[in-house]
Amino acid sequence: MRLEDLRSPAELKQLSYEELDALAAEIRRRVVDVVAQRGGHLASNLGVVELTIALHRVFDIPADKLIFDVGHQSYVHKLLTGRYWRFPSLRTFGGLAGFPKPSESEYDVFETGHASTAISAALGMARARDLNGGKNQVIALVGDGALTGGLCYEALNDAGSSGTRMIVILNDNEMSISQNVGALSRHLTDLRVSKGWTSTKRVVKTRLQKVPVIGKPAYKLVHAAKTFVKSFFVDEGFFSALGFHYFGPIDGHDIRRMEHTLRLAKEFDGPAVIHVLTQKGHGYPKAEQAPDRFHGIAPFYVETGLLREGKTGPSFSAEMGEELRAMAREDHRIVAVTAAMKDGTGLSGFGEEFPGRLFDVGIAEEHAVTMAAGMAAAGMKPFTAIYATFFQRAYDQMIHDVCMQRLPVTFLLDRAGLVGEDGETHHGVWDFAAMLPVPNLTVLAPRDVRELRRMLRWAGEAAGPVAIRYGRGGIDLGENLPSRPFRPGRWEILESGVDCALLAVGSMVKEAIETRRILAEQYHIRAALVNCSSVKPMDRALLGSLSDRPLVTMEEHVLLGGFGSAVACRCAEEGWPAPMLMFGIPDAFIPHGSRGQLMRTLGLCPDQMAKRIQAELNGRREHGGGAPGA
Amino acid sequence: MRLEDLRSPAELKQLSYEELDALAAEIRRRVVDVVAQRGGHLASNLGVVELTIALHRVFDIPADKLIFDVGHQSYVHKLLTGRYWRFPSLRTFGGLAGFPKPSESEYDVFETGHASTAISAALGMARARDLNGGKNQVIALVGDGALTGGLCYEALNDAGSSGTRMIVILNDNEMSISQNVGALSRHLTDLRVSKGWTSTKRVVKTRLQKVPVIGKPAYKLVHAAKTFVKSFFVDEGFFSALGFHYFGPIDGHDIRRMEHTLRLAKEFDGPAVIHVLTQKGHGYPKAEQAPDRFHGIAPFYVETGLLREGKTGPSFSAEMGEELRAMAREDHRIVAVTAAMKDGTGLSGFGEEFPGRLFDVGIAEEHAVTMAAGMAAAGMKPFTAIYATFFQRAYDQMIHDVCMQRLPVTFLLDRAGLVGEDGETHHGVWDFAAMLPVPNLTVLAPRDVRELRRMLRWAGEAAGPVAIRYGRGGIDLGENLPSRPFRPGRWEILESGVDCALLAVGSMVKEAIETRRILAEQYHIRAALVNCSSVKPMDRALLGSLSDRPLVTMEEHVLLGGFGSAVACRCAEEGWPAPMLMFGIPDAFIPHGSRGQLMRTLGLCPDQMAKRIQAELNGRREHGGGAPGA
Repeated sequence: MRLEDLRSPAELKQLSYEELDALAAEIRRRVVDVVAQRGGHLASNLGVVELTIALHRVFDIPADKLIFDVGHQSYVHKLLTGRYWRFPSLRTFGGLAGFPKPSESEYDVFETGHASTAISAALGMARARDLNGGKNQVIALVGDGALTGGLCYEALNDAGSSGTRMIVILNDNEMSISQNVGALSRHLTDLRVSKGWTSTKRVVKTRLQKVPVIGKPAYKLVHAAKTFVKSFFVDEGFFSALGFHYFGPIDGHDIRRMEHTLRLAKEFDGPAVIHVLTQKGHGYPKAEQAPDRFHGIAPFYVETGLLREGKTGPSFSAEMGEELRAMAREDHRIVAVTAAMKDGTGLSGFGEEFPGRLFDVGIAEEHAVTMAAGMAAAGMKPFTAIYATFFQRAYDQMIHDVCMQRLPVTFLLDRAGLVGEDGETHHGVWDFAAMLPVPNLTVLAPRDVRELRRMLRWAGEAAGPVAIRYGRGGIDLGENLPSRPFRPGRWEILESGVDCALLAVGSMVKEAIETRRILAEQYHIRAALVNCSSVKPMDRALLGSLSDRPLVTMEEHVLLGGFGSAVACRCAEEGWPAPMLMFGIPDAFIPHGSRGQLMRTLGLCPDQMAKRIQAELNGRREHGGGAPGA
Repeated sequence: MRLEDLRSPAELKQLSYEELDALAAEIRRRVVDVVAQRGGHLASNLGVVELTIALHRVFDIPADKLIFDVGHQSYVHKLLTGRYWRFPSLRTFGGLAGFPKPSESEYDVFETGHASTAISAALGMARARDLNGGKNQVIALVGDGALTGGLCYEALNDAGSSGTRMIVILNDNEMSISQNVGALSRHLTDLRVSKGWTSTKRVVKTRLQKVPVIGKPAYKLVHAAKTFVKSFFVDEGFFSALGFHYFGPIDGHDIRRMEHTLRLAKEFDGPAVIHVLTQKGHGYPKAEQAPDRFHGIAPFYVETGLLREGKTGPSFSAEMGEELRAMAREDHRIVAVTAAMKDGTGLSGFGEEFPGRLFDVGIAEEHAVTMAAGMAAAGMKPFTAIYATFFQRAYDQMIHDVCMQRLPVTFLLDRAGLVGEDGETHHGVWDFAAMLPVPNLTVLAPRDVRELRRMLRWAGEAAGPVAIRYGRGGIDLGENLPSRPFRPGRWEILESGVDCALLAVGSMVKEAIETRRILAEQYHIRAALVNCSSVKPMDRALLGSLSDRPLVTMEEHVLLGGFGSAVACRCAEEGWPAPMLMFGIPDAFIPHGSRGQLMRTLGLCPDQMAKRIQAELNGRREHGGGAPGA
């Protein structure tokens, strides 16, 4: 049977192992071809081809519920559940999402995107089943990286204690996004090694000897020798301490063997964990050799593995990393903290130069922030770089552990705003709303990479907490704009104009420049242009002086609770006229698509904004003009 | 030596064990006397008297850093570190805080209040020490309850992996706030039992036999018999899997024995955990017998243990619990979820009637919310009751796991607003700002217990997520106000008036009624009064119809990002005049004190608000009147 002829995953149950092998190869080709075109998550999907097939053979999905933790490893599942033909639309506007979406298919039962949620969700579903007298199984498929997240542990602790019938599949490819982090991953190594050495599980042993990705062999041998006797007894200590029955480890590329264990676990009347060893990138040599590079990747050439478009243009992440590195040379108090986003946030170079001063804590944002607070309380200057969407995890820690004590921790919120193809689970559009109401916190958004560097310099000397948010990619507005040292509470007038004032933050300064040009050239409207990069504190004096003309705010953030909202609030407090227009993201979850497409859909492109401004000003003139609402 | 003569904790090192015993007794008397007067956390402090003394004898605090997890067990530490005379001011406005405060004493090195932060903070301090070549130890004192929090686990995982020299003291009193929750606590029981049976640690064995609070003996014997052989080998499996060296368990009321173990751990060159067994309420029989009731308690009589003032008046928590129970009788889909706040949120009765439908997941708010999402995805109607301040922990889960999928989870945010004596770590004043910008979420704040019941009924039928926030204590405005079924997006005009309109939410409706009376009687100002309990969606039509008169917003929440802010934003969008005045909490962390004192300090009492409204209206009349800013 060819993949394209598969009408339902139930048909997999009829196939022979030879046919399944052929199917697996076909799936790999399809995944590689489409991701090579569209970009996406490659290595993790190639690693779970056989596992996904085995799951669909043993279980009756969707009667049995399968929840993908994080969810970027669900491509194979999508191909097997009626989405073969739509698969080339992956991650495009209006096309298939790169993550599970119940709105896409009944086979997707829970939306994911952030790590470590699946066990909690699965436990909830299992409890609902028990209350309703159902018989179905619930399976959470979790990577070893996600297991560093505290949420996983909370769920394991609760599930293990309650004894609820459910299955956690630990997909152990020995890495989170970029590397093994944490004591638990070492414990998993113990499990692998002790089992490999002491059990009769031939396959595992073979696998340990032959598969290069298992890696770090020297460390392992030493470590294994030291802990051999102990391992023999403690082996699955971690999981059994948490009340789970442990199966494994098993070879995640051997469908037959997995089926055997899955069937055992399926009937087990309690919480079970199945430890499956997989290889990231399995079957595509380029990805096997560099699974990191092929974790999430832009479009590439299949034969060479090289990107279709070489990286061009400035990058906020890269410039942040460079500047912080320069600062660290001068100030020994500066350290960097991240949560499994070392490469993505631009900190790799910092880590190479200062290996002892970069702390990658794994997928554990809460801990990253409170640990940074501890360092700051002891005199250091931690810069904590986290994607804006994941920073949501550390909301309480930001308030309670950092800002309340006014500790000099700088939060670097990377990928803020619309992130594009990763879609609704990954847009970072609530951070102003979370941060602006928190006392003691200075909130900044640079107009471009040059201002980011100046802000970093200032933050390095700041006495209290600072947050700097910037988007994916980079913006460089060039050398012609002013470049005095950054100071909070001071906005920059980039252009003057009496008909209205454009108050823009972050990425929207660039759009405002273009908007202003269109207003001038097409509509003969003279707009002042202000870079409001100090979102908190605001430049009260400048805002007051501008309140004699209609104000327009622009931000890549939801309107309610964002910059425009804060301006409206301040204007109300001062008795100044409210902003005439506030551009931002509306009150809805924004789907995936290119940033350009999304911005146009939301009416945030310069021509669209200019047109609305012109219409609003015209309307006012016709109605007698004056302050809004008058 | 008498406690009051102790000038520094260093002097403890000179005392004999007999003197220490006398001192411990004196500390207990002092703690009981003051808490009996002021209210506060009693049982946990009585449990750590000897442990705190031993810590100060073995370590050089504050050179060695001692961090109290949660922090309500720091009273003994406060008494030993120069705060004996100020101790009677505990938890009063301007007096000592009920939690560690670096602003109070150099012996307090990190502010705490929310659970599970101490290991992260300690690891940060230990890393700072290592970078600076310091020699001091860092000690995190953590209760077994806090160990159910994922943040603890993230920190253990990171610390254990890094091998950083630090000490975690596990203060095991076999309960979190109300009960043992989670598989890990069972594992701790295994540790206690297996060690008691197999080691020569006589004291532990004795203790296990004689101390009644150890509890659940039947369960334990069965369980211990089953796991005896296994326990013998796995014993400290959990901690050693996470890379910690385990010491214990030791008797937490035997200073000499604790000192011995603490000295061993002090020199250990890596992460160590010391498992200390303590008895909550130790030494005060009333509290020993009912440690739950004496966890956090109002002023009481020492001899009888009875409260000085019987509970009076309505309670949001109690009425919520009752109504939800009634609803659960009619709708089998209704379940309740909480995170170690079963009693506090009023769910005990629900749990008695529907033991299988109440899920207390331990101190694990993130998991509580995502688990509820899983239940909702499987057809249930979870009501998740969490204190507003702790709900901050589940901010990402609220957005990502519940609202994005539009799941019918109802969040019940108890203790919202100013909580009084627990102070800045416990005020719940950022929840509107966190929730209002999130799509799909309906955000409600009842004016009184009657409206809360109507809201609950409505939420029971809602198709999407709902949040209801209400304060500590209760408000009943009586039967004379309207009582039609609740509908979101509809505000209630309680009183009419043309001079201005008071838009009040939640607890502030009561204050607005009084404010309106003062305005009328003292200043002859006729104010309309509106209950804006549907904070999102707003009643756009009613707001529009009121925009012909000055608007005043009132909320027990920070101004920026709160209700007033949202009204200002909406008015700007619509081109209506901005609110004339916005009453709420300013941009600062609010200290502890009675709610009344805090409200007066913030200018939120009716007489104060009436005066400001009158002044503002007068000012407008003098300046020609009209719309704000005109």
